[in-house]
Amino acid sequence: MSGDPGGEEALVRAIRVLTTATCEAGGVRVGIGDDCAVLEPRPGASLLATTDLLLEDVHFRRRWAEPADIGWKSLAVNLSDIAAMGGRPRWALVALAVPEGTSAEEVEAFYQGALALARSHEVTIVGGDTSASPAGWMINVTVLGDAVAPALRSTARAGDAVAVTGTLGRAAAGLAVLERGAAPAKIDAAHLAEVTGAHLRPRPRVREGEWLGAAGGVTAMMDLSDGLGIDLPRLLGESRVGAEIDLGRLPVDDATRAVAAALGTNPTTWATGGGEDYELLLTCEPAALPRLGQGLAEACGTRLTAIGKVTTARPVRWFSGGREVTVARGYEHFAARPAPSGAGT
Amino acid sequence: MSGDPGGEEALVRAIRVLTTATCEAGGVRVGIGDDCAVLEPRPGASLLATTDLLLEDVHFRRRWAEPADIGWKSLAVNLSDIAAMGGRPRWALVALAVPEGTSAEEVEAFYQGALALARSHEVTIVGGDTSASPAGWMINVTVLGDAVAPALRSTARAGDAVAVTGTLGRAAAGLAVLERGAAPAKIDAAHLAEVTGAHLRPRPRVREGEWLGAAGGVTAMMDLSDGLGIDLPRLLGESRVGAEIDLGRLPVDDATRAVAAALGTNPTTWATGGGEDYELLLTCEPAALPRLGQGLAEACGTRLTAIGKVTTARPVRWFSGGREVTVARGYEHFAARPAPSGAGT
Repeated sequence: MSGDPGGEEALVRAIRVLTTATCEAGGVRVGIGDDCAVLEPRPGASLLATTDLLLEDVHFRRRWAEPADIGWKSLAVNLSDIAAMGGRPRWALVALAVPEGTSAEEVEAFYQGALALARSHEVTIVGGDTSASPAGWMINVTVLGDAVAPALRSTARAGDAVAVTGTLGRAAAGLAVLERGAAPAKIDAAHLAEVTGAHLRPRPRVREGEWLGAAGGVTAMMDLSDGLGIDLPRLLGESRVGAEIDLGRLPVDDATRAVAAALGTNPTTWATGGGEDYELLLTCEPAALPRLGQGLAEACGTRLTAIGKVTTARPVRWFSGGREVTVARGYEHFAARPAPSGAGT
Repeated sequence: MSGDPGGEEALVRAIRVLTTATCEAGGVRVGIGDDCAVLEPRPGASLLATTDLLLEDVHFRRRWAEPADIGWKSLAVNLSDIAAMGGRPRWALVALAVPEGTSAEEVEAFYQGALALARSHEVTIVGGDTSASPAGWMINVTVLGDAVAPALRSTARAGDAVAVTGTLGRAAAGLAVLERGAAPAKIDAAHLAEVTGAHLRPRPRVREGEWLGAAGGVTAMMDLSDGLGIDLPRLLGESRVGAEIDLGRLPVDDATRAVAAALGTNPTTWATGGGEDYELLLTCEPAALPRLGQGLAEACGTRLTAIGKVTTARPVRWFSGGREVTVARGYEHFAARPAPSGAGT
């Protein structure tokens, strides 16, 4: 996650160049550039490691996110990175800085939120750090996990199918409602709860990731944190391939469509440009698609939807009703701006 | 590290209670409460994990800390936690948030500072996160390492000797000079450079920790991040013992004494109440002390100084010239206050 996805790309490239030299020390199968690092404490043993910052007024607002929501989400975004590698999360380190005047109850609620999600995935919080903060809540969570055969971003092949789990755009719909403040009267309460819940308490696809990683036929995988418009090019770039995506096939649920209609927004914009859905984006052998779809539905109750195919021609091409179109680049966190929906820096 | 060591104690206790229930999931030898978590990815394999936040105007000031210093120190404080367990650091995850207007050169300098220290300890930076920050620089570093026989805080025994590596109070002397702005004219430039360097670019006792952990005879160990006055009671509390410390035996170097004299400060106050020395505090069998002292000097060129003994009576008692005295509780980060040397919140 980043408050500056554009700048982040350049920064990650620079950091990767800087740090690659140190990777020769060994014990590193995958360094910077994938959802997790893949470490080898000893030959044959794989350990996944991932870390994410969540900052007030960059990644969440205290106006609409309760401490327990923040705790839940801080862990969720990291579990999603483990899921994206087909791994099993095991341990979390949770660092929290809060401003003067924060009550012990708020801090405890934060940890209770994180623990609720941790327990449901048998993850143990084994350490952390606490600090005073000069400005707002700041959280960093690191999660470690096991992986047998990590699903990388860099191994998609031309001819593969492109697919996503669940539905897209829900979290963006939720964010639009939360940022707006008052809910539009004509939206169904259940729909509202569904989309705001998707934003505040995302459910990382841990079981789905582990099942998909072990099922065979998945060639590359990542999680959708910044939106398809940013994340798909990242996966394709790592694999040095392109893709053709049919926007008409993007899975968008009824709640998201209802909120989009009420707010006068095109739900496809949320599905491509919205972030924080934490669904899995994967490529697979086309022949494996029916088996993977049926198996995932049976094992986890989660839908897998084919949305396009991997091509040799780079970068990604988007189609709607057979016509090529452009899409918004993806979700930009509101970052460092007083306006409620300002773009990232 | 914390901007609120007093509040942190209570918070860590509360978090430990909250999280202990989840530790039953297994694979955890030591959870919250020591320098590092000790994990067991599989039976017999030990992995150390530690995480630390560093925040602008809580842990450092941009007025006197260059980006490369911040990068160095962010890694150093975590390597020190690995050292405190007698471990060998291997991998680091570095998360950085910077405010709008930060140049790519500053970000690169930050990573170069971290890499310079990483290389000298054969540590690989394998991942991280970047974000826009709404207020100042914020860093979180997580370090993972190997440990054969972790040196814990909880295993000191009455009758043990208490000892520290190196000298105490240097970083506090450096901070006093840095916060003052202009250097007092009568201080030797070499002394100035020594104490400010100790604050800006602490050298974690990684080799010393590994040597001491393997040498036999060390019963408990931790690193001095918040000062002897805070950290020693933490170690003793975990071990359910007390101690008697002779302030006259605290090792204080010439540079620290010279700066203290120039600023009209008692250097013992810095040695007990100053933080961020990142020396190792340990307890050991009294009979092992000469062997450990000589061996550490030969192996690492680092002095080991006995400063007192572990007792059954809790908590710690401090003596000066044979008389019992009280000491300042320890270093409090300046935290969230506009005044340059205000206490932590």
